[in-house]
This record gives sequence, C-alpha cells and structure tokens, in this order.
Amino acid sequence: MQFDRSVAEGILFTDQYQLTMAQLYFRTGLHKKRVHFDYFFRKYPDYGMHQAGYCVAAGLEWLLNWMEQVEFREKDLEYMRAQTGTAGERIFGDDFLDWLKQNGRFDTITMKAVPEGRLVHPNVPIAVVQAPLAIAQLLETPLLNHLNYQTLIATKASRVAQRAGDSLLIEFGMRRAPGKAANAGARAALIGGANFSSNAGASHALGYSPKGTHAHSMVQVFMALGEGELGAFRAYADVYPDDCLLLVDTIDTLESGVPNAIKVFEELKKKGHRPLGIRLDSGDLAYLSIKASKMLDEAGFPDATIFLSNELDEMVIWQITSQIEKSASRYGVDPESVIKRLAYGVGTKLITSEGASALSGVYKLVAVEESPNKWIPALKVSESAAKTLNPGNKAVWRLYDNEGIAMADLLTIRDEEDPHEWDEVILRHPSEPSKYRKVPRKHVSEFEPLLVDTLKDGKRVLEEQTIEKARARRKRDLERADGGVTRLINPHVYHVSLSQRLWELKQDLIEQFTSGER
Amino acid sequence: MQFDRSVAEGILFTDQYQLTMAQLYFRTGLHKKRVHFDYFFRKYPDYGMHQAGYCVAAGLEWLLNWMEQVEFREKDLEYMRAQTGTAGERIFGDDFLDWLKQNGRFDTITMKAVPEGRLVHPNVPIAVVQAPLAIAQLLETPLLNHLNYQTLIATKASRVAQRAGDSLLIEFGMRRAPGKAANAGARAALIGGANFSSNAGASHALGYSPKGTHAHSMVQVFMALGEGELGAFRAYADVYPDDCLLLVDTIDTLESGVPNAIKVFEELKKKGHRPLGIRLDSGDLAYLSIKASKMLDEAGFPDATIFLSNELDEMVIWQITSQIEKSASRYGVDPESVIKRLAYGVGTKLITSEGASALSGVYKLVAVEESPNKWIPALKVSESAAKTLNPGNKAVWRLYDNEGIAMADLLTIRDEEDPHEWDEVILRHPSEPSKYRKVPRKHVSEFEPLLVDTLKDGKRVLEEQTIEKARARRKRDLERADGGVTRLINPHVYHVSLSQRLWELKQDLIEQFTSGER
Repeated sequence: MQFDRSVAEGILFTDQYQLTMAQLYFRTGLHKKRVHFDYFFRKYPDYGMHQAGYCVAAGLEWLLNWMEQVEFREKDLEYMRAQTGTAGERIFGDDFLDWLKQNGRFDTITMKAVPEGRLVHPNVPIAVVQAPLAIAQLLETPLLNHLNYQTLIATKASRVAQRAGDSLLIEFGMRRAPGKAANAGARAALIGGANFSSNAGASHALGYSPKGTHAHSMVQVFMALGEGELGAFRAYADVYPDDCLLLVDTIDTLESGVPNAIKVFEELKKKGHRPLGIRLDSGDLAYLSIKASKMLDEAGFPDATIFLSNELDEMVIWQITSQIEKSASRYGVDPESVIKRLAYGVGTKLITSEGASALSGVYKLVAVEESPNKWIPALKVSESAAKTLNPGNKAVWRLYDNEGIAMADLLTIRDEEDPHEWDEVILRHPSEPSKYRKVPRKHVSEFEPLLVDTLKDGKRVLEEQTIEKARARRKRDLERADGGVTRLINPHVYHVSLSQRLWELKQDLIEQFTSGER
Repeated sequence: MQFDRSVAEGILFTDQYQLTMAQLYFRTGLHKKRVHFDYFFRKYPDYGMHQAGYCVAAGLEWLLNWMEQVEFREKDLEYMRAQTGTAGERIFGDDFLDWLKQNGRFDTITMKAVPEGRLVHPNVPIAVVQAPLAIAQLLETPLLNHLNYQTLIATKASRVAQRAGDSLLIEFGMRRAPGKAANAGARAALIGGANFSSNAGASHALGYSPKGTHAHSMVQVFMALGEGELGAFRAYADVYPDDCLLLVDTIDTLESGVPNAIKVFEELKKKGHRPLGIRLDSGDLAYLSIKASKMLDEAGFPDATIFLSNELDEMVIWQITSQIEKSASRYGVDPESVIKRLAYGVGTKLITSEGASALSGVYKLVAVEESPNKWIPALKVSESAAKTLNPGNKAVWRLYDNEGIAMADLLTIRDEEDPHEWDEVILRHPSEPSKYRKVPRKHVSEFEPLLVDTLKDGKRVLEEQTIEKARARRKRDLERADGGVTRLINPHVYHVSLSQRLWELKQDLIEQFTSGER
C-alpha cells in the first residue's frame, strides 16, 4: 500500500480529537457558535545552558497557503466513514460527514496575526482566530504545527546570525533534518537571518540561489583513482573557475589541503579568475582558520573566504571567534582580518534546534460569542498562576521608549480605551498582583499594534509574507530591541504586561471560576 | 509567489553540492564509474543523561517510494538552467542538464539494506548503494534525510514502548512536530512500538485507526455557556457512548473531574454501554492515578483506563510507575492494578527525540569499481581512529550465541570465506589493535546476514516494508537482545567487530594512505 500523501497532508493533517470534538459540536448544535482562540507560546526555547530572550515569528505564510488549499474531499470522508470505534460502530455519522463536505474548510475564519520576522515574546497572542467552533477546532493542530516549528527554527537561526555578524551564514542541515521539515526549516532559517541554504529544491522554490561546492567523497574518488587531492582540486577549478571553493581537510588541512588549494588558486589567477576560498570541516577550526588565513595571505589571496562547518551553532561560532581574537596575533596575524573572511555553514543544530527541539506554542480558547459581537471571555485556571489564560478578545501593543527601544508588550481588552489616550500607563504583571509598573505617558513614544488583519471571513487581507520582508522586519526589530533582551546568554526578561482593565477582568473571572459560579 | 512543493520535494530535495559534484563528474567523464557508498550512524542517540544502546532501523520504504517517483522534469532543469555563479556565468551547462534529463533518476542503483524494524548499531552499514558516481552522489542527501529521522524516532519510540510494557502507547506529537515530519514521525513511532497515533491523516494513509477524544477547550466551551464540566461530559457520552474517554483535569481532577466522569459512566452503564476511562493531563500523574484508580474501583469501574499525557517520555513513565509501585498501597490500592490500567499519550519528546534531536547518520564512499566487479576500497583517514572508515564492499553478519542472544555484529570483506566455514571466530575491534576476541565456532549458533537485497539495477526486489512486519522484526530482535544492551540507562556496549581479513585490509590502506602512496 503506497502511502497517500494527499490524505496525510490535506485537511486530515490534524489530530483525531479535533474531528471527534467537531462532530460533538455538530450534534449538540454548537458547531456554528463563533469562538476565539489565541495562539501563543509559554516559554522561550531553552538550549540547555542558555535561553533565548526573544523569538522570531515564522510559518504564517505556509499556514495560510495550506488553509487555502485543503478541504474535505470524497477520499478524506471515505476514510472517516470507514473508521469504527470500540463496539464496532462507526465513529462519524453521515450527517456530520455531509456537513463537513459542505462546510469543512477555512473560509469562515477571521484571523489576526503578528507578521513573520517580528520579534515575539511569551504569552503574547501571535495569531488569534475567530471562527465557528467546529472549524476553529479543526485548525488547532495544523496551526500549531506550522507556526511552532518555523518560529523555533527562525529563532535559532536569528541567534546564530547574531553571532555570525556580517559573515555569510548558510543553512546546511538537510541531511539530518526531520524529514520533509528540511524545507520548512530552510525557509525559517532564511527568515531568521541565514543568507542562503544548501537545500536545492527549497531554495529554488523560495527564489533563492542554493549554495554548495563539494564533499570529501569527491577528493576520495580522485585519490582512489590515483589522482590525489590536487587532481580533485584542479578538476573542480576547471569546471567552476569563478566559484572555486575547496574543501581542504580530507587528508591533512595544513600539510596538504591548503597548499594544494593555493597551487590551484595560483593557476586560476593566471587565467584571470578569482578563487572564492576554502572550507574547513574538522579539527580545531579557530587554530586552522588562523594558520590557513596566514598561508592564504602570504600566497596573495587576502580576499579568499574561509568557510567553516562541522556541528556549528551560535555558541561554537562565539568560541571560535573569541579564540581567534585572543590568539591570532601570537601567529603574527591580525584577528579581525581572519574573522572578517570567515563564513559559516550551520546544519544539524540549527534545523533541529538542538537542545530545545520544540516550541511550547499553544492554541487556547479565550472567548465565546454570546450574541453578534458580544463575546464572553473563557478561562482555564491552572494550578500554576503563570499558566492561567489571559481571557477575552485582546489587543496587543508594543511600547517604545523615547530612544525608540521596545520597552514592553501590553495586552489590553480589545474594546477598551486606546492607550494613546491614557495619561499614565499601568503595566501589570500577568499573574503577580504586587508586580506592576506605572509609566508616565510621555515616556512612551509609540504604541504599536502587533496583530494585523490576516483573514476576514476567510478572505485573505494580509499581503504575501515574503522572506525578504520578514528578514527586514527581524532586522528592524533587533535594532529596536534592548541589548539585554537579545544577548545570547542569561537574557534580560522582556516585560509582557496586562492593562489595568484586563488584569481586573482576569481577577474577576478567576474569582467566579474558583467560587464555582462558572 | 506560491511555494512550489513539487520542486522542493522532487528530485531537487537534495543538497546543492550533490548537483555541482555530479556536473564535475560528468565533465571529467567519471559520472558513470560505479561507486559504493555505505550508510551508517556513528553514535547512538544520547538523551542528555542517558544514552540508547540500540537503534531501530526505519525510513527505508519511504526512501524507496521517493526514489521511484522522482526524476528531472523540465521545471527542475529550468531552475538549474537559470542559476548563476559569482561572475554571473551559468552554473550548470546544457550538456549536463541534457544528461540529467536522460539519466537523472535512480534506475541504475543496486542497494542492499537492513529491513525496517531491525535493531541496529553504530558503524554497521544499514544501507549500501552501488551506482554510477553522479547518481550515487545525488542520492546522498535524500537517503540521509529519510533514514536518519525515521530511525531516530523509531528508536525513541522503542524506548518509550519498553517502559510502557503492555500498556497502550499512542503517538501524540503532531502539534509540536517539525512541520510535515509529523507524518514520517508518526510512521516511525508505529514501527518503534507505539500502538496508534493521534495524527488523523497519517494514520489513515498508513492503514491505522487514529486515536483521540477531546481537549480542555471542549470543557471550557460548555463552562462558558453555563453547562459546566458535567454538561460537557454528558454531551460527549451521548455522542460517543461506546468510546467515552473523558479528560478530567480542566477544573480540579479529584474534586470535579473524576466525580463528574463517574456520574456520566454510571449513566452510560445503565444504558448498557461500557465507558473507556479518563485522561489525566496535568499535576502529579502518579498520585492522581492512584487516587483516581481508587475512585473508579469504588464506583464499580475497575476496567476503566487511566490515560496519561503531558510531556511524557520513557524516563517520566518510569518515574510514574515507580512512584505508584512505592506508594499505592499507602492509599489502600494495589499498585499493579493501577499500572495495568494505565495508557500513555507521548508527544513532543517522542516526535522531536528531545535531548538528541538528530541521528549522526552518514553516507560514505568506501569503494570504487576499477573494472567490472573489481572494486578498489576507498578510505578517509580521520584524525580520530574511531572515525576512520571501514573500507570496501562488506558483508554484515549478526552472530547469535547458543541461547539465541545476539552477541555481536561482524563486518567482513564481501568475498571472503563464509564465516560458517570458520573454525574460530576472530572479532576485531574496528580501531584498537589490542582489542579482539576469539570465539570458538561452536559458541556461535547462527551467522545471520543483516543486509538484504533491495534494488537490483534500479528494480525493486525487496518486499514492501509494512509497518506490521517492521513491528514484528523489532519485537523479535528485542527478544534476542541482551538485557544489558536494551536497558534504558547506561547500556552495555554492543560489539561491532571486523573480521581478521577486513582488519588487515583496513590497516594496509591506512598505511598506504599515511605514507602518501595513495
């Protein structure tokens, strides 16, 4: 039986309980009741010894594309029709399946979302969905799946890109990526700050030029045939005279690889070509970079790139550049000239977000429409106050200080007074009563709404989320972020606050809830 | 620009450097030379404080399906034709693209592989590929991508399944899975021992019944509408009287959830239905299981399942069952009766293999065909002896002792004497000269060849790798594995050895290599 991907990746790309709940809502007449779900994450990714201080939103465009394409086809319904329960009875009735056939698509959804590339923080709604209950529920799993993974990878990429600075950063992780997520991961890496990817198909489909040169195996082939490393390099230079980047560590980096590369570079230079550089994939990359840099300089190739790969991440890059800064002069080399010529290929640890392999994104019911446009806030009180939901239909504002630096994200009740009108800004901690800040209005230079209209009754109103626009948003948000928040280790906690009115609403609801009134 | 998945998931689902190397081989006339690549992994997944002692092979069937389906279409070649290099020149010439159009598919490959579900160990070839050089190279990335991720997840699932024992284990991770890898992950989890998945589409496409009941949001909806948790439970029981499993922790597990569930179960029982049980998704799962078990027993539902979820993995399950074993009797409950009724939903930590998010699988050139059927072994000598390749076309045998327990995997030169003929079995450590074992032939009850014919000149000769067969292989291999190897913490190191002749070949090649003769 060949695996039918159109079924596995179509509208049934969801959890079974979304379908059983949808049928229950259909049977109880609740399926058309409009509800409001918030998508947010609870915690930054924590990579073992160090934690992120921000995330980079990603995945929205692919989610929207998926939503546009899927619906219940006869084939999907056929599978559901055939499914039986414990007593052998059919799980899904024809009445419900007929309803799905007519209504089971995402053309009734209204959605606001934070655009891709923006810096985002815990407990801030990144996507909010208003839809008929049965439909909103069906969307839960695919929405989480699309946004969680790409946001996770864009975040990791952003951290690596911070350390790579102006150096070229290439996403290299396809071979150890989680299956087809190699493609979503390549996209998210580009949003998060990688310049290119080695993934050929995804790059082309995204309008990027895939990058890559050659592997150890190429050198091995020439060696097995008696032509040696030099023969391999010469062949490569012949075929790619203007894109000649040579992997120099198959035999011995400093004794064989770099000298052979320099020989070939000299031959290229005579023919009027400019060699690109070398790649180091093993050994002490800092030490080898310094020594190779010196050899390239002395041979008259001060512009040749030194491309590093092999289990890199932001911490390893940091270690390498720190070590170069400390010890290059010992070898008579200017550290900055070495670091400036470095480029990075980052693979496994980026595409799997090693150390924090999932984002804790959730999709929670926060309001139910009682009558047209009258929303009842819904709550779930957790054992931990920090996990208790922020109820209701909310607006999200990012506050900037007079230097233009983001100072906090503020959740308000959507129909409360515009914060621009306030004399004083009260920033309430989401769960601790004693923790709040009062900020004079004049200390806030801007209240920026973070959520933008995305779908209105199923119609797309958000412009296409291109990677270039997302990259520009990330860049601008990083410029406006406090350095304490974006630092790679032990970041300062960015404030996500509730308005006074939202705080009071939440307290009232908790009170009603725990006293059993609701 | 809509992302064209047919390009990103077709034959260009590979790294760019496979394409640039393929063109180089084409230009140098080496593209048709047959080569031999081994796929193997170097290290077991290491989940932080504990390491796997075996892996479970998975992903082969999907790799083979992908290989059958892809080829260079005009659309793919168009992208390659348009790609330019540093000097603005085209990277790929028409001659090469024409060749790809005619020959760029996997119909010339001969492959042997270890069937899915089998227990596998580091440095043992799990797939071996013989193919024309350009084609073998193109396959590298997709082969690694397919086999690495599914083997990683099947391995993690197998560990969880070991702890779950006879209890039902359901894969639950779709929402935090890496994008579309949710589907490959669900498949791998089933191979590794999960009984079902919550993933609706993938389950159907794999011939499994997806599993799931309801979420907190359903209870919240009924609460917001004034009908409370009991109303929600009653509605669920009405719609699913024979599949009634209720999530009891939305308000308060022991004070509200379990008593309400019991009320509804009693109503169901009166109508002649048998309730399935309850689900616990927060709090101290061990303590709550004991207390809920007691309440269910006392209400006359001793068969009701207690389904646990919330960030489970093999260690958390172990903790829960240990705690129950220790403290259940304190509450007047038989520990075994609690453990027996447990079922587990395992999500994020399974589908992302948390703590070890990638398998270190590699695809290495080990031989080049000099003349028909005459292979020259190829080597890559690493700085660490352990990473130096085992050269040449090899056979792989699993040795069993007289109790039928697997005692070692043995790599031999493919055309050396059949081990069955040996008087004495010499098991050489792959890199340390002083480490070897001599085993009398009579202590080996069986030499089992691990690699089976998969593709012959592109034609599939391996039967379909169904999940059921893979599950059966895993089960049988676990029965024949040493308990030290399969234990979850600090496992005994399984021996992967070289035959005396392979050892000698390797040493000769290292000698030639380091003396510069090759």
